[in-house]
Amino acid sequence: LQGTPVVHASKGFELPSLSRLTEVIGQELSSSSVAVLSGPTHAEEVGRGTPTAAVVACSSSSVAAVFQGLLHGPTFRVYTSGDVIGVELCAALKNVIALATGAGDGLGYGDNARAALITRSLVEIGRLVQAAGGDPRSVAGLAGLGDVVATCTSRHSRNRWAGEQLGRGRAVAEIVASTPKVIEGIPAAQAAVALGARYGVDLPVCEQVNAVLNEGVAVADALASLMGREATTELP
Amino acid sequence: LQGTPVVHASKGFELPSLSRLTEVIGQELSSSSVAVLSGPTHAEEVGRGTPTAAVVACSSSSVAAVFQGLLHGPTFRVYTSGDVIGVELCAALKNVIALATGAGDGLGYGDNARAALITRSLVEIGRLVQAAGGDPRSVAGLAGLGDVVATCTSRHSRNRWAGEQLGRGRAVAEIVASTPKVIEGIPAAQAAVALGARYGVDLPVCEQVNAVLNEGVAVADALASLMGREATTELP
Repeated sequence: LQGTPVVHASKGFELPSLSRLTEVIGQELSSSSVAVLSGPTHAEEVGRGTPTAAVVACSSSSVAAVFQGLLHGPTFRVYTSGDVIGVELCAALKNVIALATGAGDGLGYGDNARAALITRSLVEIGRLVQAAGGDPRSVAGLAGLGDVVATCTSRHSRNRWAGEQLGRGRAVAEIVASTPKVIEGIPAAQAAVALGARYGVDLPVCEQVNAVLNEGVAVADALASLMGREATTELP
Repeated sequence: LQGTPVVHASKGFELPSLSRLTEVIGQELSSSSVAVLSGPTHAEEVGRGTPTAAVVACSSSSVAAVFQGLLHGPTFRVYTSGDVIGVELCAALKNVIALATGAGDGLGYGDNARAALITRSLVEIGRLVQAAGGDPRSVAGLAGLGDVVATCTSRHSRNRWAGEQLGRGRAVAEIVASTPKVIEGIPAAQAAVALGARYGVDLPVCEQVNAVLNEGVAVADALASLMGREATTELP
């Protein structure tokens, strides 16, 4: 496979190294032609042929163009990007945002709270992407904002669902035990906090999600802590 | 009132000048201390006290800070911004995006299509904001992404509703006649196209929305035209 272009469509990190998946695949295959496909692409809708758009990111623009050519079609638009770091961080961390917004839903919060959480979460992920050497504009792209919007407003997302259960007062262990599916946002929240520490970036939403999941903090207290932060500026 | 700080919370343009509302108010009051408040702030939720965040933008940072101090509270977070142009353009154009995503909903499209439309619409509004002298980062902020997410996923937005009716095949005139409320996205789509021409910016989503509303193009054809555009790159 050495030299053969490869594209993956997975989300997450290798633990405990926190390596991104193109890094892991590239090392295993001794290849620098590893791309990532991401974006708001619920499989059942792609199968139905309703319009979908995704981004394929690779450090090699020619490899990205190869996959764009293979995957682009009448109902599936594919954009290229050179920002592998930004796309993979967004993909891996969007389920943390889904947990946070789900928790707000479970607490009975409304559209305002959900929109604010999504917006401010993407701002902090943008800071992380920039510190990690990526392009913060990817956060406003299909793998960031696009996938976050689709996930946080979907009744089908198990991460949003798990957050909603937390908001209604169920314990983390009980939620995890009640489903055979992996709730990816749980390890992702830990990874986010570790990445924030590595790069010296403040990630208030990810930190509060992790505090609820792994440190026994009550959901209402975590959200109150976010609301109680000092008033600040949007474009520092 | 001359010199007195003023904040407005309206959306739109003066027609046919296409002036922004802080410009109009500033001229009328001979004041440079005019701020704009915007963001995902459905009134019924603010009244209920569920968490809400908004942005107050003013060319004077001290005036912005005055309104932040007056409005910020336990359940209403206020961020400041110096980017009046970006905040006002986002506020005025978000209802065009609401019409577009509503039309997709009416055509039976799914979460993928809605997320893609939101993402790509914000990209084009970012181009317009930049060309008009604003900060494109505002598009990823509360007045842009935040308000768009709240509007495009809300059952209460009349612009999203009007778009949905269009998607189901109802005529524009019939939709307008069926409600006493103003559907702000209709004049906003015309204003967007005029601004795109003024600044030489390509606004494919706004142009297609306007073509449906004002040029008799069928909704399905307009969306097919968007899907049929050449495959491109996300971060040009």
